Amino acid sequence: MKNYKLTLSYDGSRYYGWEHQPNKDTIQGKLEAVLSRMCDAPVEVIGAGRTDAGVHAKAMVANAWMETDRSPDEIRDYMNRYLPDDICADEVKEAAERFHARYRAVGKTYCYTCYVGATKPVFNRRYVTVLDFQPDVEAMQAAAKLLEGEHDFRSFCSNPRMKKSTVRLVDSIEIVRRKDYLYFNFHGTGFLQNMVRILVGTLLEVGAGRMEAQRVGEILDALDRTQAGPTAPPGGLCLVKVDY
Amino acid sequence: MKNYKLTLSYDGSRYYGWEHQPNKDTIQGKLEAVLSRMCDAPVEVIGAGRTDAGVHAKAMVANAWMETDRSPDEIRDYMNRYLPDDICADEVKEAAERFHARYRAVGKTYCYTCYVGATKPVFNRRYVTVLDFQPDVEAMQAAAKLLEGEHDFRSFCSNPRMKKSTVRLVDSIEIVRRKDYLYFNFHGTGFLQNMVRILVGTLLEVGAGRMEAQRVGEILDALDRTQAGPTAPPGGLCLVKVDY
Repeated sequence: MKNYKLTLSYDGSRYYGWEHQPNKDTIQGKLEAVLSRMCDAPVEVIGAGRTDAGVHAKAMVANAWMETDRSPDEIRDYMNRYLPDDICADEVKEAAERFHARYRAVGKTYCYTCYVGATKPVFNRRYVTVLDFQPDVEAMQAAAKLLEGEHDFRSFCSNPRMKKSTVRLVDSIEIVRRKDYLYFNFHGTGFLQNMVRILVGTLLEVGAGRMEAQRVGEILDALDRTQAGPTAPPGGLCLVKVDY
Repeated sequence: MKNYKLTLSYDGSRYYGWEHQPNKDTIQGKLEAVLSRMCDAPVEVIGAGRTDAGVHAKAMVANAWMETDRSPDEIRDYMNRYLPDDICADEVKEAAERFHARYRAVGKTYCYTCYVGATKPVFNRRYVTVLDFQPDVEAMQAAAKLLEGEHDFRSFCSNPRMKKSTVRLVDSIEIVRRKDYLYFNFHGTGFLQNMVRILVGTLLEVGAGRMEAQRVGEILDALDRTQAGPTAPPGGLCLVKVDY
């Protein structure tokens, strides 16, 4: 048995998220089915995190222990031949025994993309959220500054029964407009359930002028999900990088 | 009644091509339905050309005569609100009375895109054709040189009963590899039915080493569709520009 590191990209549009669920198409489920067939034995695929239904990834990292005669490139080619065309193994490498995709992850980058042009984003419509207003980028940047750093992000977590610590370090939130697109780049040590989407939903309230930038600090202090903005739709979100 | 020039983009994946057909989803059909509803009267939409089923466009041009109080931007917004999200009106302008999208077109640019990387193009899989070999770009460029210019392209036309002239001027065929993608850019005064896809299918035969570059000149002279290569799949093809 050897430990392998898998770097994956996927279009999450038609999946019920990363984590396997009975009788539902999930990314982990598809990967485990293909690798179990390849190894002729059950294979568990451990992801760096669990993306929600409809969320995409450009470089999700996972690991799997497998017994196989194939080289890492041959495993990659086998996966790409049998996985559906919206999931890709971009790289397969032998990993150290102690490598664990979730426990060893020290940082993650997510990008949330909005379309703010006058027409419609035909060719990447599945990967962006269309806004029907022009958000105030400076106001959102001011609000984002209040969110950066180590905080208890309980107000931005969709799981009200979260028992473990909801303290997370978000190093940077960068908001950039380029042509007809608005990008929210988040980097942090880890993110709670739906956290990036609730952060974006709240920042967009500020961008729409329905909320003062300062209010975001009060929401953080409230430790109450109902104070924050709505959960932004999943299609605009993409896991871009995992740091080890 | 005023004449309007429409610039359109669409993802052709789920359509039976441009031209309306009874009980089938087509681009022209969708456009005419929305504009006829807007004007409360039948509207005919005249396209610069007819893209095949599954072929995309970044800037198809069309014109339509309409009676409406709406401004061109309001027409555009109405179209974008009621068209499905894979068809977009990028621009609507009042046009001269004599403007006719098909008869006045003097040139067209098509781009055919292939993926030649080692893995899979997850996010633009609908817009590229995946090759399972590394084509010889120089050989294809040499073959393309023989196709440039004014020729009778009957061998590259899928319609064997074509009565009108099959002579066309193709100014330039540019073949460029950038990273994991191979782009075939065609510019000409007009193209026959399936012509770009048959040209690409034939050039790929050369690129795969199954055909000598010189052979392409003989195929041109043969005036016989059966001599040319296969019709490349529609998803890789996109109408990029129409000149007036």
